[in-house]
Amino acid sequence: MTGSPLERLLVRLAEVSDLTKAATLLFWDQRVKMPPGGSEARAEALATVSRFAQERFIDDEVGRLLEELRGLEESSDYDSFEASLVRTTRRQYEKAARVAPELVGEMRRAAALGLAAWGPAREQSEFEQLRPQLETLLELRHQYVECFPQPEETYDVLLDDYEPLMKTAEVREVFAELKQELVPLIEEIRAGGDVDDSFLDAEFDPETQRRLALEILRAFGYSDDEWRLDETAHPFMTTPGAGDIRLTTNFRPNDLTALFATMHEFGHGVYEWGVDRSFARTPLHAGVSLAVHESQSRTWENLVGRSRGFWRWFYPRLQEEFSAQLGSVDEESFYRAANKVQPSLIRIDADEATYNLHIILRFELEQDLIEGRLGVADLPGAWNARMEEYLGVEVPDDARGVLQDMHWAGGSLGYFPTYALGNVISVQIWERALEDLGDLDERFERGSFGDLREWLHEHLYVLGAKFTPQETIERVTGSRIDAKPYLRYLRRKLAPQLA
Amino acid sequence: MTGSPLERLLVRLAEVSDLTKAATLLFWDQRVKMPPGGSEARAEALATVSRFAQERFIDDEVGRLLEELRGLEESSDYDSFEASLVRTTRRQYEKAARVAPELVGEMRRAAALGLAAWGPAREQSEFEQLRPQLETLLELRHQYVECFPQPEETYDVLLDDYEPLMKTAEVREVFAELKQELVPLIEEIRAGGDVDDSFLDAEFDPETQRRLALEILRAFGYSDDEWRLDETAHPFMTTPGAGDIRLTTNFRPNDLTALFATMHEFGHGVYEWGVDRSFARTPLHAGVSLAVHESQSRTWENLVGRSRGFWRWFYPRLQEEFSAQLGSVDEESFYRAANKVQPSLIRIDADEATYNLHIILRFELEQDLIEGRLGVADLPGAWNARMEEYLGVEVPDDARGVLQDMHWAGGSLGYFPTYALGNVISVQIWERALEDLGDLDERFERGSFGDLREWLHEHLYVLGAKFTPQETIERVTGSRIDAKPYLRYLRRKLAPQLA
Repeated sequence: MTGSPLERLLVRLAEVSDLTKAATLLFWDQRVKMPPGGSEARAEALATVSRFAQERFIDDEVGRLLEELRGLEESSDYDSFEASLVRTTRRQYEKAARVAPELVGEMRRAAALGLAAWGPAREQSEFEQLRPQLETLLELRHQYVECFPQPEETYDVLLDDYEPLMKTAEVREVFAELKQELVPLIEEIRAGGDVDDSFLDAEFDPETQRRLALEILRAFGYSDDEWRLDETAHPFMTTPGAGDIRLTTNFRPNDLTALFATMHEFGHGVYEWGVDRSFARTPLHAGVSLAVHESQSRTWENLVGRSRGFWRWFYPRLQEEFSAQLGSVDEESFYRAANKVQPSLIRIDADEATYNLHIILRFELEQDLIEGRLGVADLPGAWNARMEEYLGVEVPDDARGVLQDMHWAGGSLGYFPTYALGNVISVQIWERALEDLGDLDERFERGSFGDLREWLHEHLYVLGAKFTPQETIERVTGSRIDAKPYLRYLRRKLAPQLA
Repeated sequence: MTGSPLERLLVRLAEVSDLTKAATLLFWDQRVKMPPGGSEARAEALATVSRFAQERFIDDEVGRLLEELRGLEESSDYDSFEASLVRTTRRQYEKAARVAPELVGEMRRAAALGLAAWGPAREQSEFEQLRPQLETLLELRHQYVECFPQPEETYDVLLDDYEPLMKTAEVREVFAELKQELVPLIEEIRAGGDVDDSFLDAEFDPETQRRLALEILRAFGYSDDEWRLDETAHPFMTTPGAGDIRLTTNFRPNDLTALFATMHEFGHGVYEWGVDRSFARTPLHAGVSLAVHESQSRTWENLVGRSRGFWRWFYPRLQEEFSAQLGSVDEESFYRAANKVQPSLIRIDADEATYNLHIILRFELEQDLIEGRLGVADLPGAWNARMEEYLGVEVPDDARGVLQDMHWAGGSLGYFPTYALGNVISVQIWERALEDLGDLDERFERGSFGDLREWLHEHLYVLGAKFTPQETIERVTGSRIDAKPYLRYLRRKLAPQLA
């Protein structure tokens, strides 16, 4: 191959990116469009394509090019594309090179088979149907951990895949602070008496919900040119290529929570959408970590989508479309219901305060699983016991308990903590945006979200994966991860519900 | 790698199949779901995945294994899986090994970009928008032809990709026979006076059409477990994996022709669906050639879907759903309208007789293009002139002329003749099925299509690509390609329309 070392590296990375994006589409399609009969073939295709991507990435030639490029990296500005590319790629390469492509393929195949089993298991609320897949996936995670030098804690290795360079101990510290503040806060709120949300217990036509969700998304920045919105059992966002952002959601006839889930996925989508397009087909063309990703999904879901200004703008439209259900409900009542704190069974439908306890529960169970303190067969029991302990709710069946999320079935162990970290980071970033932009609520009231989107685009999204997650957070917020702004925000927002 | 040479070959072929299936999904998604903003990234992903599939297939290791397996091939029964696998793979390998993976990737990228340009060009009826892509594609086809020893005719090389081992001269001979019979037949029909189909010039709700089409497909053998039906500009069928059959169609508010197009795609789908599942992830797990494929799409579209028995079964349902449009039209009138011969602009909507002239026109233009007798810029003019000459119709714009099909935009040059060959083969196979099964019309009247499907499954579909196309046709029909049964069938069926 000809060209400078940088050009040769870019060609190689583009190939890896193309293969990875092909795997992304195989995954999206599996969850959204594929008939069930395609499961086996899809698992094989995912395994093979992922293995090739891995083989191509960890090829010695990449290592050689990265060595050759040390000079360029050192002579270039730290913030330059060149230095950032070499730096980020080297970190990913050194990690990836430890893992045999066969194991990567195996994990991907097992994840595809796990996801294929998860759907029916959840529908029938039969944990046993998924147990063998979970056991295989856990065993593969152990093999994966073995590829790395002995970590301080086994869980560190898993966490690093989703939140590069972060340690379990740091998460534990942030979560301890959250738990310490949230448990009494939730108690106080319960003592404050019930918020009436009985009017939400009604029929809401899914097609109308979809139309309304698209109205909201378009005001946020969604366009048919570069986005899709599909339905699936468990909402997610993925991008099979630059300029191709795919949101999924799940409109149900008996509640409106999918409106929030849709705004959540928009937050993921707009982050990927905003990454500098000139980074396409390189490792820089991605969100920097899952916690930062979640900070954006939670921003658009909660800080925007559950704000007073937002509903001042959109509630008249909602009321108009659902006049039978909401005609006699005023905006203030709806706003309070949309922010009602109440311990419940399902994470993705949880309010902003109890949500974090759902995460802490999963974080603890994941550590117990990977450290061998908990067997897969005992997972449902442990889940149910801890739901009772942390949230005081009784789990009626596995569908609404341990089977509710697809993450574990898809082999994602170590992913959950990034959700609560995202909550924390979202408010840190939000406070900076407010400093620069002033009153956002007033803009939201007018259905105007462009200033916020552009601020986030310019300060965060465009950076992609140029810097480490910690560097990125510090550049945007001026500080390290800090739970205090989030806790302040929650206490202020939920004050009307306090005793 | 360990295992016997056969096992090692199977592992390698499975990888190639997985990559090819990933490319298949990338293509399906591009045509059916992808937002337009994803075009560029998709072209790159398609190029890379296709190039890897090619590289992996033509690797020397495959050549060595095929050599090592000569003994096994010779000692095994010709019809055995082992002998068929080695034989078919060797033929494909020897051909593929002549083509550089870079060229394969280039062709795939150019095809993706061509298809991306085709959509808007057709919508705006602007041939100029597509011309540069067509020129690139033609240039790449020339490079492709150069990879092979000098053929008798350049077109032989193109044809071989779709109809392995067939020569242009053979096609010309069959087409000459078709033309000789069809031109006067169509003349006679025109002289016979007009069939009234004015009632088809009405509004037919696309959603209702979709529901009806699915009723038909389910009676044919479609199930949600292994099939999908989506909408796209230009209907096609593809399978991103065993047990995952994807039909596409295009319901329009102002005609019912998509019902026939949907049955057409079902025919392609059921052929792939019926290939022996134990062949999965090998080159045997596919239809044997495009002409044989088309024989099945045309069987389900025309021999079944335009038969008297079929409409005796289904017309009451159609009438029920479209009572305003068809309430006063009796079954016989509808049947005649569905079989009306009338020269028209659009190939996929053409009747059984004139259809072949659409193909012959394309076959001739393709030869002119590849032999350099016709420049791309002159294509619309040549198209329009020949439409006038062969079918007596005037082409009002390129959208309904040279831009109507996506094949050339997708780089498929040499594909079209297989459609008319498929017509010919369909009746050869049909006559054998009738010999074994007796009266099919009587079964269709009862909505019963299982006997036909099972006969085709057992005699043709299950074989996949074990034998050459010619061998396959001879095994099923007992003879070589022969236009006479088809011409007899047409003359008999169209007799009521003759002067």
